[in-house]
Amino acid sequence: MSRGVDSGNAVVLVSGGLDSATVLAMARAEGWICHALSFDYGQRHKAELEAARRVAEAGGAETHRVVNLGLGEIGGSALTDAGIDVPEAGGEGIPVTYVPARNTVFLAVALGLAEVTGATDIFIGVNAVDYSGYPDCRPAFIAAFEQLANLATKAGVEGAHFRVHAPLIELSKADIIRRGTELGVDYSLTVTCYQADEGGRACGRCDACELRREGFRAAGLPDATRYIPG
Amino acid sequence: MSRGVDSGNAVVLVSGGLDSATVLAMARAEGWICHALSFDYGQRHKAELEAARRVAEAGGAETHRVVNLGLGEIGGSALTDAGIDVPEAGGEGIPVTYVPARNTVFLAVALGLAEVTGATDIFIGVNAVDYSGYPDCRPAFIAAFEQLANLATKAGVEGAHFRVHAPLIELSKADIIRRGTELGVDYSLTVTCYQADEGGRACGRCDACELRREGFRAAGLPDATRYIPG
Repeated sequence: MSRGVDSGNAVVLVSGGLDSATVLAMARAEGWICHALSFDYGQRHKAELEAARRVAEAGGAETHRVVNLGLGEIGGSALTDAGIDVPEAGGEGIPVTYVPARNTVFLAVALGLAEVTGATDIFIGVNAVDYSGYPDCRPAFIAAFEQLANLATKAGVEGAHFRVHAPLIELSKADIIRRGTELGVDYSLTVTCYQADEGGRACGRCDACELRREGFRAAGLPDATRYIPG
Repeated sequence: MSRGVDSGNAVVLVSGGLDSATVLAMARAEGWICHALSFDYGQRHKAELEAARRVAEAGGAETHRVVNLGLGEIGGSALTDAGIDVPEAGGEGIPVTYVPARNTVFLAVALGLAEVTGATDIFIGVNAVDYSGYPDCRPAFIAAFEQLANLATKAGVEGAHFRVHAPLIELSKADIIRRGTELGVDYSLTVTCYQADEGGRACGRCDACELRREGFRAAGLPDATRYIPG
C-alpha cells in the first residue's frame, strides 16, 4: 500500500464495509497514523464487526477500538429494532434503515477518541451520492460537526482546529471501488449487506447489496463479495 | 409540582445529580411531556444511575431509558479510567474529571431519542458558572449543537427546528437549588459525588461535593445530602 509522510494521528471510523475500508486506505496513503474506531450498536449484522477487525488490521491501523453503544434501547430503525423488517431494494425517500442520529453519535465518540489520542482529524466514509436519503451524510452536516468540535473540546479551546475528512462524499460507488483497488484494498474482507450471515456472506437482495454489486459492475471490476448460495 | 399546559414531547437528560433533577422539574413545570434519558458510560459512581431512576420517577417523566455507552474503551478521564485518581477540590483549569466529548455524545444520543419520540426539544443541565472548565458546558457549544441537529436529522430536513434548552447555564448553584426547591424537587434523591458509595452516600471531599455543599449554604437551605460518616 502506498504511503506518504506521517501527518500525525487521525481517528478513522471503520464499519467493516466497503466505504470505510477505502477511507482507511486513503488516510494511510496520506501518511496518517490511524486509530480505527468501530461501534457495536445493536446492529443485526455482527459479521460487520468481525469484518471491521480484519479491515483495520489489513489496512494498517495503529490501534482499533470497538465501542459499545446501546442504541437498541432507543430503536426507530430496521437495523437495530427487531420489530421492523429490513426492506428489499427499491424504496424512495429516507430509508427505514435510517438509524436516528447515527453519524452524529459516531462522530461524537470519534471526537472523544481524537482528544485522547491527540488527533484533530477524523475520517468518515459518508457518501452523499448513493445514500442521499440520509441527512447526516451531507456536506453541510459535516461542516456543522467541525464547528461543533472546535467548541466542544479542550483542544478546540486551546486553539486546535478539528477537521472531519469525508473523502468519499462526492464519489460514486464505482469511483470508490476504483480508488480502493488502486490502493490495494481487499474488498473480500468487507461486509456491506444488512442481512449478512455469521460468516459475513451477503444476501444479494437488500439495498446495500444492490448498490455494492452495481458499483463493481460500473467500475468494471470483478465483484469480490461472498454471497449466500440460493 | 406546578404544571403548565402540555407543550409536546421533550427529551430530558437525567444523570441522577442535582442539576438535571432541577431541569426535569423546570421542563415539567413548563408542561413538557418528558422522556428522561440516562447513560451508563462506565462511570465509577453507579449510584448515580439508581438516583436517576428515582429522580425520573419522582419528577414525573413519561418514560426513562438508560443507554449503555462504552466510553471506558476510550478512557482519558478519572471518571471512567480506573488508572486515574479522582482529585480532591482545589485544582485549576480544565479538571481531570473531564470526559472527552461527553456532552457531545450525550446530546447526540438525545437527538436520536428526540427523533424516535417526535420531540424537537432537548433539555440538558449544563452550567457555565460552576463548571467553567468544561468547554462543552458553554452557550456557544449549545448553539452549535442546535445548528448540527437541524442538519443531522430527518425532522430537520423536513423543516423542524431543534432547540437545546440549557436553563441552568447562567445560574449559580445556589440559584439552581432555590429554583428546584420552589418546584418541589427532593434533593435527597440525587447523587452528585464522584465517589459516592453503593447506597449513594457522598464522600464530602471531592470537587462536586464541595460545590454542592457551598450551593446549599449560599441558598440558605438545609443540605439534604447523605454523607459517608467519618
